[in-house]
Formats: sequence, structure tokens, C-alpha cells
Amino acid sequence: MTTTAPPVTLDDVQAAAERLWGVAHRTPVLRSRTLDAIVGAEVHLKAENFQRGGAFKFRGAYHAASRLSPEQLSRGIAAYSSGNHAQAVALAARELGTRAVIVMPEDAPRSKRTATEAYGAEVVTYDRYTGDRVALAESLATERGLTVVPPYEHPDVIAGQGTAALELLDETGGLDALIAPVGGGGLVAGSATAVKGRHPRARVIGVEPETGDDTLRSLRAGRRVGIPVPHTIADGQALHIPGELTFAVNRRLLDDVVLVGDDEIRDAMRFAFERLKIVLEPSGATPLAALLTGRVGPLPERVGVILSGGNVDAERFARLCGPRA
Amino acid sequence: MTTTAPPVTLDDVQAAAERLWGVAHRTPVLRSRTLDAIVGAEVHLKAENFQRGGAFKFRGAYHAASRLSPEQLSRGIAAYSSGNHAQAVALAARELGTRAVIVMPEDAPRSKRTATEAYGAEVVTYDRYTGDRVALAESLATERGLTVVPPYEHPDVIAGQGTAALELLDETGGLDALIAPVGGGGLVAGSATAVKGRHPRARVIGVEPETGDDTLRSLRAGRRVGIPVPHTIADGQALHIPGELTFAVNRRLLDDVVLVGDDEIRDAMRFAFERLKIVLEPSGATPLAALLTGRVGPLPERVGVILSGGNVDAERFARLCGPRA
Repeated sequence: MTTTAPPVTLDDVQAAAERLWGVAHRTPVLRSRTLDAIVGAEVHLKAENFQRGGAFKFRGAYHAASRLSPEQLSRGIAAYSSGNHAQAVALAARELGTRAVIVMPEDAPRSKRTATEAYGAEVVTYDRYTGDRVALAESLATERGLTVVPPYEHPDVIAGQGTAALELLDETGGLDALIAPVGGGGLVAGSATAVKGRHPRARVIGVEPETGDDTLRSLRAGRRVGIPVPHTIADGQALHIPGELTFAVNRRLLDDVVLVGDDEIRDAMRFAFERLKIVLEPSGATPLAALLTGRVGPLPERVGVILSGGNVDAERFARLCGPRA
Repeated sequence: MTTTAPPVTLDDVQAAAERLWGVAHRTPVLRSRTLDAIVGAEVHLKAENFQRGGAFKFRGAYHAASRLSPEQLSRGIAAYSSGNHAQAVALAARELGTRAVIVMPEDAPRSKRTATEAYGAEVVTYDRYTGDRVALAESLATERGLTVVPPYEHPDVIAGQGTAALELLDETGGLDALIAPVGGGGLVAGSATAVKGRHPRARVIGVEPETGDDTLRSLRAGRRVGIPVPHTIADGQALHIPGELTFAVNRRLLDDVVLVGDDEIRDAMRFAFERLKIVLEPSGATPLAALLTGRVGPLPERVGVILSGGNVDAERFARLCGPRA
């Protein structure tokens, strides 16, 4: 039997937290009596929709970019993203005094593209269902001497994403379970590294959209399984295969992955809107959907939830959650 | 020249804050780099949409109810309200272990009625444009031995509402101006009492919807002036005449009242949604609308804003702020 060192450790997440201190927001932890009563547990909501750039992504992007060499930084950074990582890299570049070129799908929500450009980045688009964003970003990077900051396939990105869970553990004094959305797997991998490092017996549960269950399938198969690019309202989780690095972490640390449907995600967005008075984008609402539908199963006493982002414009929210036409 | 003692003093607001300690939420103060850049000032947003019951109203209602005699409390309390005061009184009654009967307009937003009943109150409805809610509440109170907790015409209510501004002053270390919505005038009267008591040279500016400019007209006339019941999306400010007591405070303490239109309120709600990631009901967004439209005029350095509430359901938000049909 061989054991390999994990690509990311609790120490890495703790070091990332130090590097992010005073740069990333220490986002609030919200409580709701109503939610606690519905699910029968003490729920602590880490509101990463209030993070800079509107999502947790700034943590990983800034952390990874800040560790590049001065020479790399002087040439600039590049990224491919369905949206939130784009804003995060654009913002990180601005903070670090360099330029960013972002490869985004043509059908990314308007608010995400606008915000990315507002942070001073150059946006290059591709077709989500036919284009190869990784190849495009890499050829752009080679051409222009840029360094690619990947959305999840890098230990520095994963360590950065784990800092939200670390803050949640610090603020609550410990949790029995943590629920986080699974897209490429960076957030949940970083979160699990933090949680299991501090509290080995705590459970870590990932949430995927029903049509985007690549990580669940992969965990069951014991290897990375690809699926067709999923159509789901949870655009931040519309990925077709887990990352190699993130899957290596997640197959080791995740206790379970549960699935939620688009209508359940809409209900969770409405709940956040009407009861919590906060804005969650579809992907940001999937862990809440898992809780509200009871999909997670019997809950232990103290449950942490990463509300990962709030980048949805009012028109899209209205179409998703307003009166049915 | 005669001077009369003000009906509410800074000491009253400070005493109310002590009584509310541990019962009302100390709501967060939000900052936005984007907003600061747009308006050219340091803006501190007091997020009363996160208050218990979803609006500042719990402060005044609980404070006033908590000062009733044990005998009054044992018989129960009654209220008339366009919505948020209803939830506030229902919640205060539950907290104080008594019952509440609430007189609400038939066309009150669904979310407000549902929430009021969920707090255990009995709801009695009337027609906003023809009924006399005060008479109805008073006859109900007489019949059943209840004490009416008015939405604004009571020194204890005004003092309670002023505690939000007091917290904002404490947290910011002082402000050069405060902007608050004007409905019946209790919030702005309590806020002005707190602000002028602490910082006599700070400006206090009220905001009314264009069609509901009864306080502005009254200030200009030097006496209370009634208008037809206004039709505005800012349902919390659809009042036709200032309160006697609140006007007595406001004519003395307000520096200005500015007006905002329904479309400007919608834009402010969208801004809060997309940039701040928070939910504001129309009335709660009027001060932000005044800021974003430049209606307040040249701003001093440090500006406080009371975001008074967030009780708007997702369907209504979608109708107000979604794609135009």
C-alpha cells in the first residue's frame, strides 16, 4: 500500500489565510432562527456572496497570483472562467498592479462580464458548448507571456478557497458538518482540507446540480468520470469532469455528494431572498437547497454552509424566481 | 418666544438602546467601494433589512410594548400597519409573552401578512383607500381590552427607532450627515434626535416618494398638510399626513427632505441587489435612490444611511425590477 502526500494541507490553508488577511473580506457568518427550526440544527452560513468580486473565488485567485514571481506578475495573468473566477482574477490583477486577460463563455451572465471589464480586465469570448477554453487561454498566455491562474487545478487556488471554511471554524469554534457546492471541486477540496485538518470527525458534504453530477459519479466509480456539459441554472457548476488535483483531494476527504434540481435551487434562492434578505446566485444556493430539501439526511448539531456567491443580475433573478409566465 | 421641551431626547434614545440590548439585532454597517466612488463620499449603510422582522420597526414596537404595565401586557397589544410595524408588533408580543391583533390593509404584500401570522398574531384587514385603520384598531382594542402600539405617534416608539442611528454613530465614530426614509416620520424623528443630540452640526435629510410628499409640504407650510393617500411602490411610505408628534420633532430637527420617483427607487433596489447583494424593499431603498440620483446635493465626507427594511417577496421584486413586459 502506498500513500502519497496530499497536494494541499491544513498548513497551506492557514498560510493562505495569512496572505489574504486585509485583502479578502472576512465575510459575515449569518444565522436564521427560521432555517434552524426548519432543518433542526444550528446552521452557520458563511456569506461569500459578500466577498470581493461577489464570490469566494477571489480567495483562491488572489492567493495564487500573489505567489507568482515578480517577473511573472510584471507580464500579467490570464484565466478561463464561467464567470466568478473571471472577476476574481481581474480584481486580483488590479490589486497586484498587473493586467488580466479573461476567456469567458459567450453566454456568461451579463453582470459577470460587465464586472470583469469594470475591474480593468480584457475579455475574450468562446462558445461554452463547442470551444476549448483551456486551449484558448493557454495559447493566449503563450502568445502574450501571461501566466494562467486556473480556476481550481492548482494547490495555491485550493488552499485559498479553503480559507472561507477556516474562518467559519474560527468564528463558530468548530462544526460537526460542512456543506459546500461542488463545481470544479476547488472550494470543497479546500474546505474539506480545513475542516478535516481541524476536526477529523466532522463530515464534509458536497452539493452538485442533478444534471452536473460528475463528481458524484466519479466518487462512485473511484476515478474521474466525464459527462456531457450539463445544462443547469447553476452556471458556476456546469462542469463536465472533476479536476485531477481536486478529485485527488475530494475522493480522500468528502463524506458524500448530494444532488439538487433546478427548481429546488430556485426555492433556495427565494428563501435566501425573502428570509435572509440576501442575494445568492444559483450555484451559491445549492447547499441551502440541499439543506431545505432534507437531501443531506440526518444532521448533526452544528452545521456550516458555504454560500459561495451572489453574482446574479436582477433580470436573471426575476426570470428564475419571479412569477411563472 | 416660547420653547417647549422636545417629546423625545437623546437620553430617551440611549435608554431605549439599553432596553433593546440583546433583544433587537445590532445590524451590520455595510460599505461599498462602488457606492463611495459614485457619490464621492464615505457612505455607511445601516442594514436594518437584517433586523428581526426584516425592518427597523421592531426597535420601536418592542421598546414601546416593553414599557407597558404588567396588566396591560397580560391583556395583549394591537396595531395598525401597512406591513412592517405589523410584523414588529407581532414579534414583540411573542417576545413579551402576550398576544397581538393586527389591522392590515387588504393589499399589503403577501410576505408581510404571512410573516405577521407566522409570529402568532391575529390579522384583521381593511381597505387602504376607504377604511379608517386607526378607528378600527381602537375599537378592537376597546372591545378586547388591548393596548394599541402606534406605528409612530408615541415617544417610546420614536425613541426606539432612533437606536439604529445611535448604533451607526457608535460604530462609525460620528457622521457629517444622515439620510433616512420618511413615512409616518418616526424613524427619521428618532434618528434626528440621536444625530443632533450627539453631533449638533451634522445634517439630517429625510427622503419621501414623489407622490407621498406630505412631510416636505408640511415643512414648507410650517404646519401639517394632508395629501390624497399616495400611490407609490414605496408602500411603507404611503401616508397622507405627518404624525403630530413626529412632525413636532421633524420640523425642529430636519435639515431637508428630498423626493425620489418610483423608477429611481427601482434602480436603487437593483443596485442593492446586484452590487451590495442585499434585498431592500422599495421604502428601504429610497435613501439609496436619493444618494444615487444626486438628489441630496453636495455631500459632506461621512454619510450615514438607514436602509430601513427588506420585506419584499421574490415575485414582487421580479415584477418591480425584472425585465419589462
